[in-house]
Amino acid sequence: MELLKQKILKEGTTVGPEILKVDSFLNHQIDIRLMQEIGKEFHRRFKDHKITKILTIEASGISIASIAAIYFDVPVVFAKKVQSKNLDAETYKSSVYSFTKEAYYDVKVSKRYLSSDDHILILDDFLANGRAALGLIEILDQAGATLEGVGAVIEKGFQEGGQILRDMNIHLESLAIVNRFEDGKITFIEQNQTR
Amino acid sequence: MELLKQKILKEGTTVGPEILKVDSFLNHQIDIRLMQEIGKEFHRRFKDHKITKILTIEASGISIASIAAIYFDVPVVFAKKVQSKNLDAETYKSSVYSFTKEAYYDVKVSKRYLSSDDHILILDDFLANGRAALGLIEILDQAGATLEGVGAVIEKGFQEGGQILRDMNIHLESLAIVNRFEDGKITFIEQNQTR
Repeated sequence: MELLKQKILKEGTTVGPEILKVDSFLNHQIDIRLMQEIGKEFHRRFKDHKITKILTIEASGISIASIAAIYFDVPVVFAKKVQSKNLDAETYKSSVYSFTKEAYYDVKVSKRYLSSDDHILILDDFLANGRAALGLIEILDQAGATLEGVGAVIEKGFQEGGQILRDMNIHLESLAIVNRFEDGKITFIEQNQTR
Repeated sequence: MELLKQKILKEGTTVGPEILKVDSFLNHQIDIRLMQEIGKEFHRRFKDHKITKILTIEASGISIASIAAIYFDVPVVFAKKVQSKNLDAETYKSSVYSFTKEAYYDVKVSKRYLSSDDHILILDDFLANGRAALGLIEILDQAGATLEGVGAVIEKGFQEGGQILRDMNIHLESLAIVNRFEDGKITFIEQNQTR
């Protein structure tokens, strides 16, 4: 997605060879016009699937999923990372390791909001090692729901998540795939090279 | 907002006299059509203000702020609750007590995304004791930004947050104001009774 790549080149900053900061437009401050174009693009890429709900994970995925859901005209469910008093006791859950936070955390979805009738599109901001996506897929399996695809705004092409999902024959769409950052330089892998 | 009140009556459930669960449409599963009507309503109520950014707090506020921001055509900034490797070192911050989680947590916004030029609308799902809103207002003060108003989807009329903000002469708009739940029954306070 050219508009996204230009935005990453213009505003993204790198920390070392593996961290890309895009918090000026994607996951702290949010460029809502860009987010609408991202939502349209996900819809264009997944429109041949029958999708009943979009599933994401708090917190950064919520904006992406919510605006994309306008174009799909479906509800969003966001998986919760922290036990809260207000979460149902009956949940599907999986345990996910975060390399960013260097800790495991539980991901939970109330059993009331996923069922075997659901056809799910998973959306998130980043796809790196794939742990969050695999955790959500485990939750879908528990619910008996059908996974229709996974969409990531930015895939780190040098980490294993993309390859794992493609090897599982999952329809994965990443709107920008970045290479490892050499000397702080951001470069992209074309999607047709990876599928 | 009548559509919202009907939805609360239809799908909201109460736990004791003070907890209202609306996770079927507002803060776990999200009814995106309703969220668009909520966004339009906030825009209608605040359209006479010059607003440059919408500020909210992760996680439940992100969907509301993001979809409302489409109608205001401004960016969103969401305050973060947890220290992350990817958050700037230079942040505005405040400490907020959560009655739901029974703990204090730090709320942080990168100094790059709020400035004295900003005119801010704060949006969130619930207004109860007002601690989260007051924490965000403290952050605005640190940034020298101007607070234009606060919008809550649901205000708990029996808790002090609404009164505190109105006493500060803040333009507060709550789309539904609920009374304390007697015998599990949900009733509303009309807004013109509170202002």
